[in-house]
Amino acid sequence: MKILVANLGSTSFKYRLLDMESETQLARGGIDRIGGSESSCSVEIGAWKEDRTAHVPDHAVAVQQCLAQLTDPEHGCLKSADEVAAIGFKAVHGGRVSGVQRVTPAVLEAMEEMSPVAPAHNPPYINAMRLLAEKLPEIPLVAAFETGFHQTIPDRLRYYAIPKAWSDEFLIKRWGFHGASHRFIGVRSAELLGRDDLRVISCHLGGSSSLCAIRAKQSVATTMGMSPQTGLPQNNRVGDFDAYFLPMLMKKTGKSLEEVLAYLGSHGGLLGISGELSGDMRDLEQAAAGGNADAQLAIDVYISEIRRYLGGMLVELGGADAIVFTGGIGENGKEVRAAVCANLSELGIELDAAKNDAAKGESAIQADGSRTQIWVIPTNEELIVARQTKQLLES
Amino acid sequence: MKILVANLGSTSFKYRLLDMESETQLARGGIDRIGGSESSCSVEIGAWKEDRTAHVPDHAVAVQQCLAQLTDPEHGCLKSADEVAAIGFKAVHGGRVSGVQRVTPAVLEAMEEMSPVAPAHNPPYINAMRLLAEKLPEIPLVAAFETGFHQTIPDRLRYYAIPKAWSDEFLIKRWGFHGASHRFIGVRSAELLGRDDLRVISCHLGGSSSLCAIRAKQSVATTMGMSPQTGLPQNNRVGDFDAYFLPMLMKKTGKSLEEVLAYLGSHGGLLGISGELSGDMRDLEQAAAGGNADAQLAIDVYISEIRRYLGGMLVELGGADAIVFTGGIGENGKEVRAAVCANLSELGIELDAAKNDAAKGESAIQADGSRTQIWVIPTNEELIVARQTKQLLES
Repeated sequence: MKILVANLGSTSFKYRLLDMESETQLARGGIDRIGGSESSCSVEIGAWKEDRTAHVPDHAVAVQQCLAQLTDPEHGCLKSADEVAAIGFKAVHGGRVSGVQRVTPAVLEAMEEMSPVAPAHNPPYINAMRLLAEKLPEIPLVAAFETGFHQTIPDRLRYYAIPKAWSDEFLIKRWGFHGASHRFIGVRSAELLGRDDLRVISCHLGGSSSLCAIRAKQSVATTMGMSPQTGLPQNNRVGDFDAYFLPMLMKKTGKSLEEVLAYLGSHGGLLGISGELSGDMRDLEQAAAGGNADAQLAIDVYISEIRRYLGGMLVELGGADAIVFTGGIGENGKEVRAAVCANLSELGIELDAAKNDAAKGESAIQADGSRTQIWVIPTNEELIVARQTKQLLES
Repeated sequence: MKILVANLGSTSFKYRLLDMESETQLARGGIDRIGGSESSCSVEIGAWKEDRTAHVPDHAVAVQQCLAQLTDPEHGCLKSADEVAAIGFKAVHGGRVSGVQRVTPAVLEAMEEMSPVAPAHNPPYINAMRLLAEKLPEIPLVAAFETGFHQTIPDRLRYYAIPKAWSDEFLIKRWGFHGASHRFIGVRSAELLGRDDLRVISCHLGGSSSLCAIRAKQSVATTMGMSPQTGLPQNNRVGDFDAYFLPMLMKKTGKSLEEVLAYLGSHGGLLGISGELSGDMRDLEQAAAGGNADAQLAIDVYISEIRRYLGGMLVELGGADAIVFTGGIGENGKEVRAAVCANLSELGIELDAAKNDAAKGESAIQADGSRTQIWVIPTNEELIVARQTKQLLES
């Protein structure tokens, strides 16, 4: 069975094609500037790479263009587009609809209900799924929700301290996101450490970051809440803050609530703290090394918030068997990893500086005496989505 | 030197009179229903207790009535009201004005700027201080701000991930509150443990709750932020939540932003989670024991949030020398203390169940092997305010 896993933006379509017998990647590719006058359609199949340009008015044409490249008579890896058993989507927020679902009008409607709290994520998926269902009805569409992995979080960590009727009626709870990545880390760390009952703190750090406390491969706590805007500071999204300053901020800036929230969701995070310098950790590290105090502050706030949540998860789990770093920053940011783990030997957590510096791919980086293992594990969200899609098709 | 420490509500005035040579309490008393047709003026001086009724139209008359009781020829502890060197106020939020301050028009103005984020706390203090300054100009008024103790929190834990210009210009930072109580715990735990460099996690749990990480008697982190509405769930105030659900909530309930925030600040917290059952932990424990699931959920959310922050502070401090429980729930709630400390032996924290059950007054309640000491220490916020007031008068 071959499954195409899609990653959508409002004007982009990226994918990986996976063979599910071997769980290997057959191809990857994508299209940018959908709806523009000329789009670039790129594909990698083994050693073969190709960039075509084409007019790609919408996401349905984008998928067709990609299928054309995948079925290229000379270099393609598919004889026919029929070989694609399904397109699996790493969908974000379905509220009452979670887990893995065939994309139906009811699923799309549930996603639409949650668009106000996931404005950057839900609308492009809804639009593209609707279009594909109409234009390419022969390909089954499957939504693997990022919230799905977090359905095992106990109510005491899902409910906010708001009127309970509001939580229940309006679905205002901590849903959590990055489920595919955290699920992968839960599964893969169990394989690597050879134990199914592990207590793991998964640190998915990247343009968008979250932590997840995992017990026996199940999520028991995470940092994001009702929306992907809370929890840790993101590259340009705000993370946790005190909503009671909103009226003051609206008055001072003359912005409406929606405008303030949109601004905090696009000019907050690392970008905001650094005074609009950058939301990219590499830029910030470089600027901080050059003496830029705001860049240093942004890094320090990010690290402090990660450590604050890490501690909460340590207590929740009663100690951790492993801390795992993944995502762009988690996999490549050795300074961030060192800072997150600094000064924790009394709590049984000690990094080996040399191993941390040398880490490449899957690597254990704890010091010899560390009770908690510390790992770098590259994430593979597409594999999780593909597995879930396959399971649904077979069930 | 004798100092009267005042605790104000919009229609109440409570006080303690302290002798600062011996640091002992000479008297305590208060007046309720100020502005009503008949108020009760109560006083305790040693074994003597008295309740008078009187018409008390405002806080200035309230202070005069109290002074009349304190100078009662037969039972009073003062020969003349002139003996009161100052009234010290546990003031809440002055924003840019913090620490200990003589009450001046500039101080009152700074407090007024912060009224929107401390609507339950600032207005009654401002009104009463203004009135007392006018009507009783002979008594010096001193404001000891609850935010003062937290001025040592590093920037990386004070800044939100919002545009830095907004933080700096509009003073939108984590200010923290309960400063008098946490300061007392920092000082008293150092005395009890005989060390000045202690790492302490002070858990002030009561109608209003916050945690504070203390290193060498200085605050390095706390749970409340820009306003006293964030951090832990309170009896009827909300604590941390995801502001991105506010527009959805406004639409669903038909309330304005201000109405939603006011409702979350008065029908949230334990009261909200329990479905309006009660904001009082004793009621909730009783209801939960009787099988009420919402009451149990409210307790569980409260404990989980305390543990989440406790963990963050453990990591921030790199381990703790002592965890201290104080405040109404912290001092009397043995079930809460046990639940907060449960399952942490791997992190060096272990409660002794028998000592916890028997704790009365200042008590160490950790198990013999616990690396972190665990204490119950009754707080004494008035003593801190009186000390700070004395220091200011003498400086």
